[in-house]
Order: sequence, then C-alpha cells, then structure tokens
Amino acid sequence: MNQSIKHIGVFTSGGDSPGMNAVLYAIAKAAEANGIKATGIRKGYEGLIDGDFMSLETHQLQKLVHKGGTILKTARSKRFMELEGRKKALQTLKINNIDALIAIGGDGTFRGLLAFSEICDIPFIGIPGTIDNDISGTDYTLGFDSAVNTAIENIDKIRDTAESHNRVFVIELMGRDSGYIAIHSGLVVGADAILIPESGRDFIYLLDKVKSYDSEDAFLIVVSEGDEIGAELLASKINEVNSSVDLRITRLGHVQRGGNPSALDRMLGIRFGVAAVEQLLNGNKNKMVGLLNNELYLTPFEEVVKQHQVNDELQKLLELFGK
Amino acid sequence: MNQSIKHIGVFTSGGDSPGMNAVLYAIAKAAEANGIKATGIRKGYEGLIDGDFMSLETHQLQKLVHKGGTILKTARSKRFMELEGRKKALQTLKINNIDALIAIGGDGTFRGLLAFSEICDIPFIGIPGTIDNDISGTDYTLGFDSAVNTAIENIDKIRDTAESHNRVFVIELMGRDSGYIAIHSGLVVGADAILIPESGRDFIYLLDKVKSYDSEDAFLIVVSEGDEIGAELLASKINEVNSSVDLRITRLGHVQRGGNPSALDRMLGIRFGVAAVEQLLNGNKNKMVGLLNNELYLTPFEEVVKQHQVNDELQKLLELFGK
Amino acid sequence: MNQSIKHIGVFTSGGDSPGMNAVLYAIAKAAEANGIKATGIRKGYEGLIDGDFMSLETHQLQKLVHKGGTILKTARSKRFMELEGRKKALQTLKINNIDALIAIGGDGTFRGLLAFSEICDIPFIGIPGTIDNDISGTDYTLGFDSAVNTAIENIDKIRDTAESHNRVFVIELMGRDSGYIAIHSGLVVGADAILIPESGRDFIYLLDKVKSYDSEDAFLIVVSEGDEIGAELLASKINEVNSSVDLRITRLGHVQRGGNPSALDRMLGIRFGVAAVEQLLNGNKNKMVGLLNNELYLTPFEEVVKQHQVNDELQKLLELFGK
Amino acid sequence: MNQSIKHIGVFTSGGDSPGMNAVLYAIAKAAEANGIKATGIRKGYEGLIDGDFMSLETHQLQKLVHKGGTILKTARSKRFMELEGRKKALQTLKINNIDALIAIGGDGTFRGLLAFSEICDIPFIGIPGTIDNDISGTDYTLGFDSAVNTAIENIDKIRDTAESHNRVFVIELMGRDSGYIAIHSGLVVGADAILIPESGRDFIYLLDKVKSYDSEDAFLIVVSEGDEIGAELLASKINEVNSSVDLRITRLGHVQRGGNPSALDRMLGIRFGVAAVEQLLNGNKNKMVGLLNNELYLTPFEEVVKQHQVNDELQKLLELFGK
Repeated sequence: MNQSIKHIGVFTSGGDSPGMNAVLYAIAKAAEANGIKATGIRKGYEGLIDGDFMSLETHQLQKLVHKGGTILKTARSKRFMELEGRKKALQTLKINNIDALIAIGGDGTFRGLLAFSEICDIPFIGIPGTIDNDISGTDYTLGFDSAVNTAIENIDKIRDTAESHNRVFVIELMGRDSGYIAIHSGLVVGADAILIPESGRDFIYLLDKVKSYDSEDAFLIVVSEGDEIGAELLASKINEVNSSVDLRITRLGHVQRGGNPSALDRMLGIRFGVAAVEQLLNGNKNKMVGLLNNELYLTPFEEVVKQHQVNDELQKLLELFGK
Repeated sequence: MNQSIKHIGVFTSGGDSPGMNAVLYAIAKAAEANGIKATGIRKGYEGLIDGDFMSLETHQLQKLVHKGGTILKTARSKRFMELEGRKKALQTLKINNIDALIAIGGDGTFRGLLAFSEICDIPFIGIPGTIDNDISGTDYTLGFDSAVNTAIENIDKIRDTAESHNRVFVIELMGRDSGYIAIHSGLVVGADAILIPESGRDFIYLLDKVKSYDSEDAFLIVVSEGDEIGAELLASKINEVNSSVDLRITRLGHVQRGGNPSALDRMLGIRFGVAAVEQLLNGNKNKMVGLLNNELYLTPFEEVVKQHQVNDELQKLLELFGK
Repeated sequence: MNQSIKHIGVFTSGGDSPGMNAVLYAIAKAAEANGIKATGIRKGYEGLIDGDFMSLETHQLQKLVHKGGTILKTARSKRFMELEGRKKALQTLKINNIDALIAIGGDGTFRGLLAFSEICDIPFIGIPGTIDNDISGTDYTLGFDSAVNTAIENIDKIRDTAESHNRVFVIELMGRDSGYIAIHSGLVVGADAILIPESGRDFIYLLDKVKSYDSEDAFLIVVSEGDEIGAELLASKINEVNSSVDLRITRLGHVQRGGNPSALDRMLGIRFGVAAVEQLLNGNKNKMVGLLNNELYLTPFEEVVKQHQVNDELQKLLELFGK
Repeated sequence: MNQSIKHIGVFTSGGDSPGMNAVLYAIAKAAEANGIKATGIRKGYEGLIDGDFMSLETHQLQKLVHKGGTILKTARSKRFMELEGRKKALQTLKINNIDALIAIGGDGTFRGLLAFSEICDIPFIGIPGTIDNDISGTDYTLGFDSAVNTAIENIDKIRDTAESHNRVFVIELMGRDSGYIAIHSGLVVGADAILIPESGRDFIYLLDKVKSYDSEDAFLIVVSEGDEIGAELLASKINEVNSSVDLRITRLGHVQRGGNPSALDRMLGIRFGVAAVEQLLNGNKNKMVGLLNNELYLTPFEEVVKQHQVNDELQKLLELFGK
C-alpha cells in the first residue's frame, strides 16, 4: 500500500455523463474508509489550475448518487494544453498537498494527464466517463447505459406517433465517431433500419427496403450522428425512391447526456470509484481502470485509444435486425 | 334520450395525441352500458370513406388506456375534402347502419364534420384531441398535459448537462401557432427565458439578460416552434451580444406527441368519451365536448376556433419568470 | 397594497407533497419582484419556534423546481400545539422582523395558524399541499396529480405481470380518509374494480364479478387505504367466492409521496406561490389560496375543512367503470 | 448445422420477467432468417400439453420489444410434473411437427425439460429469465436489470419524502433466496444499510448505526425479502435501540416484475434469442445459453443450479457502503 498518499484530488473532464456523481460518492467513501482526504476539483483542468476546490462529503454525496451530470462541473481547458498551464496546476497541487489525482473523462482527458506526468510525479488514475462507449480497455464506459435508456424511452414514444400515422421516422442519435449508442438503441426498439459509421453498406439495403414500404405501419430508422449520410440527405434519398412516404426527422440531441443515471451506470460509477482509490493505494499510476469481462482491468494511459469497432456479434445482429 | 341511436362510429383524425385510446375505452364502456354498439373507424376520414372498421371491445381497450397514440390510426384525407368523398362516406355509414359519429381531433376535424353535415343528417359529436391546447371551448385538449410532461422530463435531463458545462441551451418545443406547451414547460423547468408567439417583446429582454450572463451556471431558453425568431437565428443573435457563451440547440420534436398518457389526459379521455356518448343519447349533435372550469361544456362546431391567447395570468407569469 | 410587508417567512408543514419546492421558487421570485425579502423556515412549526431559517435564493430554487419533497423539510410540532410554543414562535418572528407568513400544508396546518392568529397579528396565507386532494376550497391540492401519476405508472407495471400470469391483484393506494387517489388511478389504469371509502356498496358487486372470473386475464382491483374492508380481508373474501384465483397484494406506500412533481403540480405550485405573495400584499390574511374552476379562490382558514365527497361525475364514472 | 430442424416451439415459464418479449422477437427474426418456422406456446408447460399455440410474426413482435411481461403468458403446471402430462406434451409436439423447443424461465423450468428429455428426443435450449439473477452459468438473467431500475426509481422517490421528514425507511425488495436485487439497488441509491440473506452479521452493525442516528436526515435501509430478519421485526428492533426514530416500511412488491424492459434486458433478450436458435441449429441440446464475461456460454441443464453467492467484490462493496 502506498502510504504516502494522504489526499486525493478528483475532477471530471470532457463531456459530462450520467454516473459521474456516483463515482464521487464512491471515492469519498473509499477515501474515508482508508483514512484519506478527498477533494473535488471543479471544472476539470481549469479548476486544477485555479485551485477551484470543493469538499467531498459522503453524507452529501450519498444523496446525489442518482443525480445526472457532475456536481464538480466539467470544462475543456485551453490553458492546460500549454506547459505554462500545467506548471500552474502542479503548483496548485503542491500548495494544497494533493498527492494523487483521479480524473473521470475520455481519451482526451487521459492524454492531458500523460502530458502532465512529464512534469508532475504524483500518481494519476483515470476513469472512463463518456456516453459513447468508444474507449479501449473497458467493455462499458460510464454513462453509455443511461444514454441508451434515455434514447430508447424517447424512441418508444416516437413509435406511438409513428404507428398512429404510418410514418417513416429518421431518428438521429449521438455518437460522433461511434455507432454504439445507435446500434444498441436501434436493435432494442425494433428499428427497421440502423445506420452507423462502422458499417458502410446498409444504406443501399435501406433504400431497397423503403422502396417496397407500403405505408401500412411505422418504419423507424435509427442513424448515428457519425454516419456520413446524415439525416437530411437520407430523408431526401428516401423520398426519391418512394415518394409516398410521410417522413419526419428527430434529433434527440443532448437529452442523451443527462438524466438520472441507470442502475448499471450508478453501479459502474461505484465500482470505478472504489477501484480508482484502491489502485492508487496499491501504488499504481497513470492507468485507466476499466471493466473487461466483468473484471476490473488497468490500461496505461498511453495505450488508451478511441475504439471504433463494433464487434462481430453486434455486426451479425445488425445484419439480422438492422436492415 | 335519442332512442334511435343503436350504433356509434368513432374515429381519430389529424395529429395523434396521448389519451386517444382512453377515449376509445370510455366510449366502448358507455356504449356497452347503454346497450349500443360502438365501432372503430380506422385512419380518420379515410376509413370512413373506405369502410375500414375494427370492433371496439372493452375487454381489449381496458389494457390500452395507458398506450400513447391511437390504435385506430389517424390520417389526413384529401378525398374527404371533396364532395365526392363525403358522399362515399355517407354511403358507407348507411350500409353499415352507423347512426352517430364521434370524432377525436382538432378544429380541422370539426370543420370536416360541418361540411359533412350538409349532406349527412346523423348526429356528430367532437372531442378536442391535440397536444397544442389551442382550441376554444375547453380549458384542456387531450394530450396537452402529456406533451408538457414529456417536454419537462427531457428538459430536466438537459439541465443536468447544461449545469455541468455552464452552457446556454435553446430548447425548441412544439406548437406551430401556439405557445402553450412552451410557456407551461418553460415556467416549470425554471427556464431563464421563454419565447412564444403570443408575446412579441421578450426577445430584447432576453438579449439583455444574456449580455450579462457570466457562464457560471446553466441558462435555459425555451422557445416555441411558432415563435418567429427561430432557434438558429436566436442562437446567432445571442452569440453576437455575448461571444463567450457555449450554446447548444435542442429540438425535442415528435417525442412530445407520443408516450403513455399522463393521469390527467387519461382521465380527460375517459370524461370526454363518456360525455360524447351521453350527449349523442341526449339528442345533441354537431358540437364539441370540452371542459371549461372543470365542467363539461358544449361548443357548436361552427364556433370552434383556434384560440391563440395566452391568458392574463399566464402573461403575468411569463413577465415574472420568463425573462 | 400592504406596504408594511417587507419580509415574508415560508414553511412547509404536515406531510410533504411533490411541488412544494416549486412554491418556494415562485414565492422567492414574486418577493424579489416586489422588493421583499423571503426567508425559508425549516421543519414546519418547529423551525418557527426555534428560528431555524434558510435563505431562499431564486437562483438556487430555479434548479429545484423539479425536485420532490421539500428542501425546507417538514415536521409535526407538539410544542406549537401549546400556547407556550406559539408564544415562542411569535417572539422568533418579531426578533427576525418577519412580518408575514406563508404556510404550505393541509387543514391541520391551517388550524395551527388560526390558533396562532389569536396571539399574533401578522398576516398568514395558506397553500393547500397534500397528495390526498381532500381539502375544501380548491379543485386541486399540491401533489395530488404527481401521486396519481406515480401510482398509475406503477400499476401499469403490475398490469404486465398480472396479464402474464392471469392473476388478480389487489393494489392499495394512499388516502386515509379519501378515495380520490384510488378512484382517479383506478379509472385510468383500466381497473376491474375500485373500492373507496366514499362508496359503500361496491364490495358486493366486486365479489359477484370475481365469482365469474375465469382466470383468463388480469383482474386489477384498486382499493383506497381508507376503505374499511382492507386489502387482506378483501383477498380472503375473494378466495372464498372463487378459490381458483391466483391473487397478489401490493401496497404502493410512500413512493406516492415522492418523485419529481408532474407538470401540473409544478404549475400549481408556481400559481399558488405567486398568488400567496400577492394576496399578502393585497392586504389579505388568514386565508388559503385555492383553485376553483381554474380561478384563484380564497377560503378563510376557519372554513377550510376536509372534504370527503367524491362528486357526482366521479360517482357515475365509478358506477360505470369501477365495478 | 442441424438441418432436420424446421419448426421451433417457444414458451415462457415460471415467473415473468421484463425482456421476454424481446427474446420472442429475436427468435422469430432468427428463425425467419434461417427459413424455419417459430411458434409460440402459451402459458408455459400448460400450453405445451394442450396445444395452446400462437404464431410469432416478426412484424408484430417488433412493436412489442419494449413491452414488459410475456405475450405468451406463463404459468406453473402441475400436470407436467406427472409423467402423464409429459406424455401428452410429447404427443402435442409430434402432432404439430415441432422439432425443437426453446424455454425461457428459471432453474425449475430447466429441470422440467430434463425430466421431459427422458421421454422426448427433440432438442431443447433454455434461456435464463428471472429477475433474481440467481442462476449459475450466466452473469445476467433476463429481467434483473429492469427490476433493479424499477426498484431504484421508486427508492429515489422515497428518498424525497424521507429527507423531507428526516425519516427512517425500511424498504423491502424482491429476492426470496437471493439478495442480488437488494444489494445492487441499495448500493446505488446511497442506502445507509443493506441487509441480504448472503450476509449474516450486518444486522448488529445496523443497530449500532441507528443507535447514534440523530434524526437530522433520511436513513434508508434496503432489505431483501429473503433476509431472515424481515421488515417488521427489523423495525421493532430499531425502535428498541432508538425510540426517537420516525420509521416507515415499504414493500415494493410486484412492480419490480413489470414495466418496459431496460436497454440492457432488451439487448440481453435479443442476444439470448438469437443464440438459442443458433445453438439448436448447431446441434446443441439440453443446455442453457448464458452470458459469462460478456461471451455466450452453454450450461447443461443438469448443471444449472440456483446460485446464492454474492461475489467477493460485492461483499466488499457491501462492507464499505452498506453498513
């Protein structure tokens, strides 16, 4: 056990995701159990530079496990991308006797820590928090399950009106570089077609299918925002091949980022938070904790990358259901 | 009591709204209690012309009270706008011994019935079904409460992410001609500004408020799709007066039409459905049932109009909270 | 306008109900708009006696409109029932320059204020907050709509499993003296029977209906906790008349009190809060604000009573649907 | 590939669980893709004996993925426990040319199939469907995630009222033999104590903790129905050690079984359904498909047992958070 760690700083960085507050609760509990102090750093790297801190009380955090977003707030920091900013952050850490850091964020967050590690020797542990579920080294990222649940609850609503009017709906879901949210959501709402960046040729199949669509029922198309076709072009192509369709476009947008985290994300947050504290105490550093095959797994920051691949099973399901 | 009525036809028309299936349940129950047959007509006026019918069994409908949309489906009908189509519909009614009609829809639906009444002497009763709540003669239209609940549950989610990033959100809600959904939703999510078509001058106030916004918290703007400014133009105006804001636009879109109806809309549907059957049996015709001051109220179809006015109390609340 | 009012104290008392935080938001806003100070008093009459105060900031409350419960907390106070306690409360008010009071609670809360008015001459306004909707002078009490929505969302879930097993469910809902929650909920979930205290003879009808129940579908019985029969006795009576039924009992319990308030309750809270401040400024006192026929209405505290009657329309609906 | 399989029968058995309809959708799709017929058997083994069948149309099932319960209904069958009943079932299968069976249910269901296999040589595949998550050979059973989500959404509501009154709540969750639902739910709602059958000594800790509870906040105790103490006894013990606590008991009951399945359960249902068809076609039989470490895994029916163990990580989390 790394007995030199007495005070852990925690921050959230990059896009927020449901479950981040559960992580804070777990870190505070685990720190308390180990006789360590835990301090929240507000607004990501900005607060690290400026010393914008708040105390993490288990008693308060216990009531916030179910709350979406992050009470620490999050921000992108231009200053931290400069050496000057990182030096300032180091100074802030030293002044405040913070001797370990836990960061919740995406691959960009961890690259920031890598850069920081060149001048700062205190240990860092990262926790993958992004709704996109596109980070290597973990089967689940924090927030993905909640985002999919929010998406499907809304698409279930759209189904009601789509069936009532026998309409075609193009529903665009989040995922700039990754189709995970779209493929998961599309499969489980019974979508008629799913378009994701990882799968190039669905588009033609879709048009074939729409061509013979007889307007006697709903027809739901779920498309990832990262798919190159885009909702508007898709809509116009559909109207080209079948002018009788009554089509609407819905972009769910940022509702997918918020809301009370799902049971799975809260649990993930708790497991990640406890693991992060333990790994620091075990002497680990500059690694991301993840869950692979339901086991905690560590990935060195330099190996954490965006992971685009939809795996074979998902591809097969897409083949079977999504077109 | 109009003893000649033995068989009521029911259809939904125009845009669907949550609670329509509750109406069908109530009509079936009330018809059954009065020894009358009730038949569902599918796809609005289209089914009336084509004789596209389905039976309404209380036993089945009882399980569908909670289901959004309309199991009868709804559609707009060009054919019914022609005399030819209406004649065909009349013939269909006669052949099938339907001697009374209940229509659930908006002002357009009732205008259709008025035109139909010129050649058809069977009695009609209308039920106001539209999420926009913009029909005279009733304090509530069917679906409005559900649409607002769906809107605010989603905006509550957006608040999570908006607060996490200290972002400005422009959230566009439905209501092409009316700001009811937007004003109700905006007030109850604690919006910082609400823009509706009924209120011309909020825009300037809003820009003043945004000018001094310091990016230290969420700033939520709820705008009705009917407001002339539009989300994109609004966003660019905001960036003009305060270039530091981090702004996102979300259009909730058709999710507001679907989903399980709220308690109020289900109850409204039940009250409207029972009342419609009773009014037919009481010998009433060519009127819309509504609720004014919590009492059932009848409005002749010719007097049913779109009602744009946000009343004085709402205007005052808008003044107080919405800017 | 009562220009002498400069500082309003606000407290919640009795059982909590969803929408109370919306009232606080509205009071703070309205006070701010009128240049008046508003202070929150914690734990009902207890805080009034002890001077347990918290400031009400519109900026903070705006984020809590959607939050169930009451951030002021609520409690029953034995001390305030004694003259001694009320004298202490008066002293606390004077010391803190509070020159008007708004209380959110039920009929018991208002009786407390009446007693207080014998020794205290500052004006009081009451707001009806109880999920039971059993207070005279208002069509809706704060929290009723949310409680019904929570109840029906859960009963919809129970329907899933009841239909899967062809089971009889006895579902007990809140309402010690009143069947409002039960009758509203029962009607809109398509219940097969509804038992409420206001209606004595349903029980026999129910047993008749159950006798011929063939276990080929769900059979849902909604019973108010105030109905004298009680879920257990009812269950045993049912098994007596039809031993083949597979019966389960569910008591939803306190979940009906909590949760994010519905759109209607939030709006009600806002309207009540603004009206309470205005009525104080208009020189009114010792009255409860209510909504009758969608208009604000004032009832002197001495006339506020528990109102048991389910009105004629509801009785008729119960007759039609509930047995 | 087992080319002799032309017609698969599917049934749900034992307690229903959310996600069963997603399985049916997936089986229908996979059967269709392989040119095989799939038939639904109603009411579990009862329908197998009686030939109570319904067709499984992908087009219809696609709209029901989000629906809780099972459209095939489920039942326990005394007749199938007798050899006579199983012989009758065999005959029914032969007459209807069903040459493979998929059963969704718990360990009891699979034991039934084992007994059946003694006289019936057609292949069976089982899918673990139970909210209790207590079956060996799979990390997740169908319905568990939905049950936990329903539980925590309701406990979040209870927290609102518990915090408003500074009350102690004892919340009993399902799980006759297993504390999975309780431990998962308790951890992620920030419970103050969690009691499960797998952990004997928490009770003393709990009383110690309650002894020093100062009634200045909510205190939530989540207890599994399988824990020997029971909610009532627990409540009386608590009142013994601290008579000042204001305590309420809530049993969530059967709401945990119903409701729209979560994203995870729908996906699980789809994966299980597709896998079951594939395994039959691959020549496998008399095995349960499961997910271990995110990979599909087969367990012979004779090895499927109830699995009580809460694993080490959960025990550690319980130690850290639950007392």
